[in-house]
Amino acid sequence: MTIQTHIIPIRWDADRIAILDQRRLPCAEIYLDCITVDDVAEAIRTLAVRGAPLIGITAAYGLALAARFASDRAALAAFRDQLAGTRPTAVNLFWALDRCWRVVEAMSATATMAQIAERLLDEARLIHREDAAACLAMAQAGAAVFPANARVLTHCNTGALATGGIGTALGVIRAAYADGRVSQVWVDETRPLLQGARLTAWELSCDKIPYRLICDNMAASLMAAGQVDLIIVGADRITRAGDFANKIGTYGLAALAHAHGIPFYVAAPWSTIDLSLETGAQIPVELRKDEEITTLGGVRTAPDGAQTWNPSFDVTPGRLVRAFITERGLVEPPLR
Amino acid sequence: MTIQTHIIPIRWDADRIAILDQRRLPCAEIYLDCITVDDVAEAIRTLAVRGAPLIGITAAYGLALAARFASDRAALAAFRDQLAGTRPTAVNLFWALDRCWRVVEAMSATATMAQIAERLLDEARLIHREDAAACLAMAQAGAAVFPANARVLTHCNTGALATGGIGTALGVIRAAYADGRVSQVWVDETRPLLQGARLTAWELSCDKIPYRLICDNMAASLMAAGQVDLIIVGADRITRAGDFANKIGTYGLAALAHAHGIPFYVAAPWSTIDLSLETGAQIPVELRKDEEITTLGGVRTAPDGAQTWNPSFDVTPGRLVRAFITERGLVEPPLR
Repeated sequence: MTIQTHIIPIRWDADRIAILDQRRLPCAEIYLDCITVDDVAEAIRTLAVRGAPLIGITAAYGLALAARFASDRAALAAFRDQLAGTRPTAVNLFWALDRCWRVVEAMSATATMAQIAERLLDEARLIHREDAAACLAMAQAGAAVFPANARVLTHCNTGALATGGIGTALGVIRAAYADGRVSQVWVDETRPLLQGARLTAWELSCDKIPYRLICDNMAASLMAAGQVDLIIVGADRITRAGDFANKIGTYGLAALAHAHGIPFYVAAPWSTIDLSLETGAQIPVELRKDEEITTLGGVRTAPDGAQTWNPSFDVTPGRLVRAFITERGLVEPPLR
Repeated sequence: MTIQTHIIPIRWDADRIAILDQRRLPCAEIYLDCITVDDVAEAIRTLAVRGAPLIGITAAYGLALAARFASDRAALAAFRDQLAGTRPTAVNLFWALDRCWRVVEAMSATATMAQIAERLLDEARLIHREDAAACLAMAQAGAAVFPANARVLTHCNTGALATGGIGTALGVIRAAYADGRVSQVWVDETRPLLQGARLTAWELSCDKIPYRLICDNMAASLMAAGQVDLIIVGADRITRAGDFANKIGTYGLAALAHAHGIPFYVAAPWSTIDLSLETGAQIPVELRKDEEITTLGGVRTAPDGAQTWNPSFDVTPGRLVRAFITERGLVEPPLR
């Protein structure tokens, strides 16, 4: 399979990390120069860079950058903890930092910080390459579940802007389209931050894949009208029972798909599976601030003082998932 | 019951109709002066004034205004048709115009246009007063379905800004709150035009009723978490079978409520019931333009050229409705 994308969401640039500022898309393609660990942490926290696998990759590069500033391993550990504290839900962040830290621990006690920095950069690049390969493997495994002329619905952004490669769920859609199996992609706009409208629609436009954008609350009507053949989404953390966290709105889609007899798939690399958790009740869900809902691009959309409930994620029970599409193939819970 | 509201969405003003421009809320409270029938039709078409019962009231005043310009009954009929052509889904528009036209037909053939204009203004005021009374009767009938300390979820705007009185679903919520039965109102923001965020939140703020705003895609999580005791919405057209059209997103809420065992109510005056239709498949649903989804307050939220599917309404089957709350009490389908 030769599915490609020209989109580069992150790039190591000699002594800095260039991050495509996803908050500015689709209106502007601007790279942020992250020169310090603070810059990287801020980019993750403010969603300039987002998407579970890409957050892991960004953190890995961030730790490599941190090694250039850290006087010793203790100082480096503090930077690691700073990066780990940026967002609570996606497990790929902790997975990548743990993996990189094991690299540090495996090095000789006499290794210099320069040597550690070099080794961490190699590891970050490896994680990045492995994620790209995992995307391709998922795409290959997942495209087969599409019926002919499929009308597929997806939520949030799970493409090149969320991973180190062609994407998780959107990578599968790309492969199925290349395979001639997709007639239409329905794109949920994905409130409040509109990752579907701003990012997924932009990626599909770039690739000339036919899509239509809908508001999240329109998906149920499409299902009732028989206009959705399958739903495929990504994940930020998957538990052993198959319960998984993903962008808010995912659970509603899964429950509605169940009510309408529509197959519901989750595409995610193995690094998204958190074997330390049994069920979804154990996943911490990030609550974000009111302003994400009450304003949009500086325009006020609710009365002054309006309070909100603004979880960034929801948790979907594994029983609503037809299969998890991973780089190891299709799997069903419980996961081991 | 003495539930009041100070909000005045429409007012006959000597020789014109003053319409509170709901597109500008909650940021500005500005009245549009509608001097011609074109002005009134434009206000309805562009959603400066909206809400099924209020559209009916506006059309009635619009026809009274039209009689001042019409040279004869044929010219008046053309104005009537112009008003009827503004929006296709809410039946109250046609109901009000038909009722007013019967008044014209009942008048003597020798009646002057000035006499017709006077009689039509009386009829519009009567429709307005009757709708306010229907709101109070619905509120009284509906408040009784609330359990103690109810956490109620609502969609779109069904309050003083949608009716001639305290509202349909929001009127019931006002009454239940006055009765001490409401601990929290969950307000769906209601994409794409944010009638929940802009209008319902504003009405609740005005009345100091505790609420929290959510994105439409968050409602399912609240239901799963046991945070919603009942859902109550309005309607734009109800068929004999109990299938009804309402703001897009309503059907998804009803299906999710069903899956979670949460009672789902519809509050609407009898004028919303269209006895000429048997099922929801017969209701025409208005499709609106892409820009409502791809831009917000002048801010572009999707790539150039993004196509959308943008129905203003969806249709919910009557089997998902616990009861219809009307000014004649609670009724269940089939409706007669």
